[in-house]
Amino acid sequence: MNRSLLSAIRAQAPLVHNITNYVVMNSTANALLALGASPVMAHAVEEVEEMVRISRALVINIGTLSAPWIAAMSVAARTASRQGIPIVLDPVGCGATAFRTHTALELLDAARPSVIRGNASEIRALARSTGGTKGVDSLHAPEEVLDDALTLSRSLGCVVSVSGPTDIVVAGERVARIHNGDPLMARVTGMGCTASAVTGACVAVEADAFEAAVQAMLTMGVAGELAAAKAAGPGSFQMHFFDTLHGLQETTLQQRARLSRA
Amino acid sequence: MNRSLLSAIRAQAPLVHNITNYVVMNSTANALLALGASPVMAHAVEEVEEMVRISRALVINIGTLSAPWIAAMSVAARTASRQGIPIVLDPVGCGATAFRTHTALELLDAARPSVIRGNASEIRALARSTGGTKGVDSLHAPEEVLDDALTLSRSLGCVVSVSGPTDIVVAGERVARIHNGDPLMARVTGMGCTASAVTGACVAVEADAFEAAVQAMLTMGVAGELAAAKAAGPGSFQMHFFDTLHGLQETTLQQRARLSRA
Amino acid sequence: MNRSLLSAIRAQAPLVHNITNYVVMNSTANALLALGASPVMAHAVEEVEEMVRISRALVINIGTLSAPWIAAMSVAARTASRQGIPIVLDPVGCGATAFRTHTALELLDAARPSVIRGNASEIRALARSTGGTKGVDSLHAPEEVLDDALTLSRSLGCVVSVSGPTDIVVAGERVARIHNGDPLMARVTGMGCTASAVTGACVAVEADAFEAAVQAMLTMGVAGELAAAKAAGPGSFQMHFFDTLHGLQETTLQQRARLSRA
Repeated sequence: MNRSLLSAIRAQAPLVHNITNYVVMNSTANALLALGASPVMAHAVEEVEEMVRISRALVINIGTLSAPWIAAMSVAARTASRQGIPIVLDPVGCGATAFRTHTALELLDAARPSVIRGNASEIRALARSTGGTKGVDSLHAPEEVLDDALTLSRSLGCVVSVSGPTDIVVAGERVARIHNGDPLMARVTGMGCTASAVTGACVAVEADAFEAAVQAMLTMGVAGELAAAKAAGPGSFQMHFFDTLHGLQETTLQQRARLSRA
Repeated sequence: MNRSLLSAIRAQAPLVHNITNYVVMNSTANALLALGASPVMAHAVEEVEEMVRISRALVINIGTLSAPWIAAMSVAARTASRQGIPIVLDPVGCGATAFRTHTALELLDAARPSVIRGNASEIRALARSTGGTKGVDSLHAPEEVLDDALTLSRSLGCVVSVSGPTDIVVAGERVARIHNGDPLMARVTGMGCTASAVTGACVAVEADAFEAAVQAMLTMGVAGELAAAKAAGPGSFQMHFFDTLHGLQETTLQQRARLSRA
Repeated sequence: MNRSLLSAIRAQAPLVHNITNYVVMNSTANALLALGASPVMAHAVEEVEEMVRISRALVINIGTLSAPWIAAMSVAARTASRQGIPIVLDPVGCGATAFRTHTALELLDAARPSVIRGNASEIRALARSTGGTKGVDSLHAPEEVLDDALTLSRSLGCVVSVSGPTDIVVAGERVARIHNGDPLMARVTGMGCTASAVTGACVAVEADAFEAAVQAMLTMGVAGELAAAKAAGPGSFQMHFFDTLHGLQETTLQQRARLSRA
């Protein structure tokens, strides 16, 4: 994260509105708080419009869907779009069931997100609007779906952020690869969802959504490898990850960054 | 917590019925278990009445509302009221959206809680039934809303417990300030919700709701500062907080208490 | 867990579909990931059939019920049954309210589970279809409800796994007792739910459901006592538990097993 971005989150404590899945609500909120942002969760159709209006970013995650939530997600997305509030869409499990794929497409129809962040299988399924995902874990590496990510980015005019052993972030002609991270991250639930929420905090304070998405994945990767170095397994990893996000220095981030741009 | 109160929770393991938000259900249940109480979560309108009847306290938290939950909260509150079971109301985000403010007012209409516990912005919004809250984090210090808390307490005839750097608990003419705690508590999601649940465990075993609320905030504050002393950030703080609640001795609580009554 | 079973989970990473309660979704998913399985949570009636079809086991847990969830649980159970996918049913709080007891009976009507896993009070209530449970914590020891467990097992033709200080697993004439574990496990929310999910991972890779259920409880018990040996309370216990599941060796499991079969 460049000097201004991490400092900006801590100085501004942007309100990030999350409509996300039940599994990760607690860890997502804790990651945002550890980073210095201010998370709020609200999903009632009666209040999402009002909550979006006071937020700096909206993160929509379809990990545990049901019909009333989809309705609220659509209203929230349209409101954010009208208000110029950036949206991050995490199409969890897209491709695993028709319901999830259709919901992701419906949300893309409601509003254009600033960033779509998913794993390789989800991005491929979304780009092709076709099946092939096994559950919510990826069967593909990001590099395999680079063309899909580029197609998706160009057709929607948004940033596409693909997480995996190497993360790839694309926006039209711009491509960045982040080589940070640790395999333990795949053994803790919701690290992808956390990446989406951190991306939300970044787009809240940075107008260049591509740069925001890159810095978010870099923050995840560096915090992940620092936490893994102290961890004895996924339980202690999760704890050290929150501690690391909270104490992360910009100089550490810059020194450890293994980032390539093409 | 005075001798009898902490011992009483551990000896009686009171069943505390929580209708609370998705974000904090896990950490709330763990805090109650660590303290020695017996938590139960149930929100279906078909069963809340029955569940309330076997409980010793009801904690209602409006952090992630939707219409079916509000209906169940109302039924639960009315049942508790009829049965003489103490209610703790946590008006999370009251003032942030009209929906939350209306719901809080509707619940106050359904039954009088023994204790209302919130942050300063929520208590002010509830007292004035007007907006001004930013998300779910407080923009105010408890001292700034003392008059609002006193007004609310007197008009409803209940205890009002306002958490912040210094916690203030009021009941009619009685005012107590708890100066314990640590800034890290604000960087872990749901510590306020945990305070409400701990207040629920205290009112379950102590008939004087003011004293119960004071001892609950004291327990939170002392456990919080002991945990913070061992923590390297919000992740390890959360872990040490549960460990500390579990092992907390009454003598430690008394020795560390920084409590003033006016 | 015998050589083939723990290795099989890690080698096959079976997709385990959980329709479970809000309180434990995060810890359940983390336990399955730590063990080497691949968890998915999905509860919308629109997608459960499709999700079940790509899963290797279905775990249904009624800890925080509501009507739409029950409908989805029934559809999922019927689908699993038709497809020959093993089902684990955790009747959380069965007996505490009529709603929970009725739901458990309705689910047994929809499909025969491979394993019913609950605490002693829940198993007794289910066997007798009558009340007597206090909340979601057990008032009984497994040994007290052995006859109920045997009756239930024989009448339904399924495995019944009763957790407690000593776990008892029965299937018709077969009875196994697992004497591993630690009292701290009862002070962390959702350890029973985790046991059900781990049982799901085991039945996904082992056709003998009795053996799968026994090895699941043995894994829980051994991991629990290893974690407790390092823990300072329930918070650090939870962390060490995930780390332990992740690093658990089959030789350790065999050496520490205190298992009796009758």
